[in-house]
Amino acid sequence: MTWLMIDRSQKTPLIRQIYKQLRTKILNGELSAGYRLPSTRQLAEELEVSRNVVLEAYEQLLAEGFLEGQQGAGTFVAEGAFLKKTDTITSYMLEDNFSKKNNNIIDFRSGIPALDLFPRKQWGQLAKRVSIETDHSLFGYDSPEGRIELRTVLSDYLLRTRGVECHPDQLVITTGATQALTLIAKLLISANDKVIIEDPITHEIQTIFQSYGASLLPIRVDENGMDTNQIPQEIKPAFIFVTPSHQFPIGGTLPIQRRIQLIEFARKIDSYIVEDDYDSEFRYEGPSISSLQGLDPNRTIYIGTFSKILSPALRLGYLILPPTLVEHGRTLKYFSDLHTPSLEQLTLALFIKEGHLEKHIFRMKKIYRKRRSFLKEQLYNKFGDTVKIHGDSTGLHLVAGFNGIHFTENLLSKIHDQGVKVYPVELHTIKKGIYLNHIILGFGNLEEDKIREGILKIKSYLY
Amino acid sequence: MTWLMIDRSQKTPLIRQIYKQLRTKILNGELSAGYRLPSTRQLAEELEVSRNVVLEAYEQLLAEGFLEGQQGAGTFVAEGAFLKKTDTITSYMLEDNFSKKNNNIIDFRSGIPALDLFPRKQWGQLAKRVSIETDHSLFGYDSPEGRIELRTVLSDYLLRTRGVECHPDQLVITTGATQALTLIAKLLISANDKVIIEDPITHEIQTIFQSYGASLLPIRVDENGMDTNQIPQEIKPAFIFVTPSHQFPIGGTLPIQRRIQLIEFARKIDSYIVEDDYDSEFRYEGPSISSLQGLDPNRTIYIGTFSKILSPALRLGYLILPPTLVEHGRTLKYFSDLHTPSLEQLTLALFIKEGHLEKHIFRMKKIYRKRRSFLKEQLYNKFGDTVKIHGDSTGLHLVAGFNGIHFTENLLSKIHDQGVKVYPVELHTIKKGIYLNHIILGFGNLEEDKIREGILKIKSYLY
Repeated sequence: MTWLMIDRSQKTPLIRQIYKQLRTKILNGELSAGYRLPSTRQLAEELEVSRNVVLEAYEQLLAEGFLEGQQGAGTFVAEGAFLKKTDTITSYMLEDNFSKKNNNIIDFRSGIPALDLFPRKQWGQLAKRVSIETDHSLFGYDSPEGRIELRTVLSDYLLRTRGVECHPDQLVITTGATQALTLIAKLLISANDKVIIEDPITHEIQTIFQSYGASLLPIRVDENGMDTNQIPQEIKPAFIFVTPSHQFPIGGTLPIQRRIQLIEFARKIDSYIVEDDYDSEFRYEGPSISSLQGLDPNRTIYIGTFSKILSPALRLGYLILPPTLVEHGRTLKYFSDLHTPSLEQLTLALFIKEGHLEKHIFRMKKIYRKRRSFLKEQLYNKFGDTVKIHGDSTGLHLVAGFNGIHFTENLLSKIHDQGVKVYPVELHTIKKGIYLNHIILGFGNLEEDKIREGILKIKSYLY
Repeated sequence: MTWLMIDRSQKTPLIRQIYKQLRTKILNGELSAGYRLPSTRQLAEELEVSRNVVLEAYEQLLAEGFLEGQQGAGTFVAEGAFLKKTDTITSYMLEDNFSKKNNNIIDFRSGIPALDLFPRKQWGQLAKRVSIETDHSLFGYDSPEGRIELRTVLSDYLLRTRGVECHPDQLVITTGATQALTLIAKLLISANDKVIIEDPITHEIQTIFQSYGASLLPIRVDENGMDTNQIPQEIKPAFIFVTPSHQFPIGGTLPIQRRIQLIEFARKIDSYIVEDDYDSEFRYEGPSISSLQGLDPNRTIYIGTFSKILSPALRLGYLILPPTLVEHGRTLKYFSDLHTPSLEQLTLALFIKEGHLEKHIFRMKKIYRKRRSFLKEQLYNKFGDTVKIHGDSTGLHLVAGFNGIHFTENLLSKIHDQGVKVYPVELHTIKKGIYLNHIILGFGNLEEDKIREGILKIKSYLY
């Protein structure tokens, strides 16, 4: 058996070296069925290893069925353990997106909070406390709707800050708002259903609804959100999807008249309204706007997220469902991922309960307000009358329209080559061609010097 | 305006009290469009509050569109702010599963690790370190396949312990194994596809595949897992689903001959094998079994989980995909929940890297081995020849068959009334009626006195 090689300089244990070589030889047919292996004693001597090493390697191969035999009667290669080779994975390597990330890019991506200001110390301490102090039942399987502790503090918080009326049992904690969107799609869309939706609207949301078989019925938005007068009255959609607090991306806030129109329409045709409230905590002009959900909790499904007010890395969001949809919603959540991670849910519950969340939002709102003013100032300074700013009353982005500019892929990639990333509104439009001269500028994660530099570079390519 | 009530004993701020009452009166039509409100000064005097309080309440109502008007010209109720009432949610309360949990139940549920032995201190300290020490880019959006740090240590770990051959780029970190199953369903199942599957097999898995339109083609299992000779050769399924290391629930380990048969069949019909490896780290008899995936990484999709070796509360699992499926798999993950929570991924990466995981598994294996022996001993003591034990070589459960017993719902609920929960194998069968006298007994989370008491109570109902 000189064809077995032992290499004592390798990190691989001797047992594993022997096991692997024998296994390979059996799989590729070098040792064929019925072949009698040397006794463990004999092989151990040949290889100059302890007999136990060989015994263990043989035992593993016996357990896996490569070998057969009984003590004393000898050990043989088993039938049917030969596998014809095909191409295997060699030097397989996908593009490594991770290492390619360029940190010098000034990225005006919307919806990114100031990552360097995440309350990492408080969060870390609470996470540790949760892990160490909670009853050990915490570490078992949990219920699909999420921890009662989180649902309770969240329902209080939402009533206090957003005019949302919900019992904790109407809440389903989700692994981020994207999961909430897929759950709604599963809950309400049947093949060939129509969904009434704002145009423009986040293109990922369009993709999700379409992937569940819906065809989209776009309704144009204006400076006040969805133009509800344009809704065709003869159609019964699966639901109406709106971002009433801060339309994405154009930024309008839906006035009460349109909200009531929507609710009356939904009542008439017996359908639902889905309210996506992604960043309205950061409202800079006028007092905060109450939710649409509060007007008719039986007709409205509300989606919330902690991605903008805390961090998207947490993947924590939630759904508020009308009572009639709760049970089905929980079942769908169960079959998606059973439930959202429990320790993180409890950490967030404590974070809210101890008042950290509201303090953090208060602090961040001041910072974002400054960044927003600075961005507007830079835009007006550099572009004067040629720029028009929309939707800056709320949130972490605004939309800028530039006279006579067409943001082609070519132009965008030229700006990108200069180290600045901006995002065209056209990416999110359903009816194309209306917003060619508009871009979305997120400012949440950009300090003033970056904003200044970014706008300057954009300027150099536009005029 | 005596119809506005101020209650200084309430916790609700005065501004909010005024705002809410006016809003309600406008919504329900008590104050109709065109109605002129008293001036802020006047109302403030009447209610004996500061004028700023009234000003802020008015401002909010103006911002939301309930009121209109300009400084000096008076403030009026706006058109279209009246909403007809419908039934609202009153005294709505779902069953509270949470408070109903009875901790005195002896629960033989399978797949639950010893919850009181979760390494909570180490985990908590690492979670804190991750939150406090990692670069702030951690708190942004991440890539759908998961953190490179985790994928790298995991790929090393899997090679070392499970004979799994994968490049980190083939891994997709999932929010638990259930999500991995739904991703596979989305990836591979088209309407009316067939899926070849073991029978019995976890009923949730059946539900998931069926919910994506698959019809199941059950293949009976025996003491060695799926009886691969029974696979109809003329059929081309979307994939073949197996639990080769420890068949769930019957517990067999698939021998190499059957593994090779499966792979050759998959190659012939150009299909995939899905290997669900949920608890094989805990192997009590013989050495650990290598993965099926290692035999043909181009044909096999491997599902792994940290639910049994650490805690199901973490919701951390993973998929290993053949290179050709990686890109599509990542896209589907993106549209499910963007990515799995980042902080938890990094905590786990550190936990593995610093050697805690392997130490924890080593420690737990000793404990589970003892619990398993104790359970077997109790079964043999109490039932003698009338019981037969299956599938106890591996994992956190075994299957017990009792001569002449039929585990009807009635019998199971009588046992439950005695404070003991056991699970019939029939719950997981596709072809019914074969395992009527078999139950699944999980022992991972039960101490010896609980096991003794539980078996005693079962005994009192069986014979």
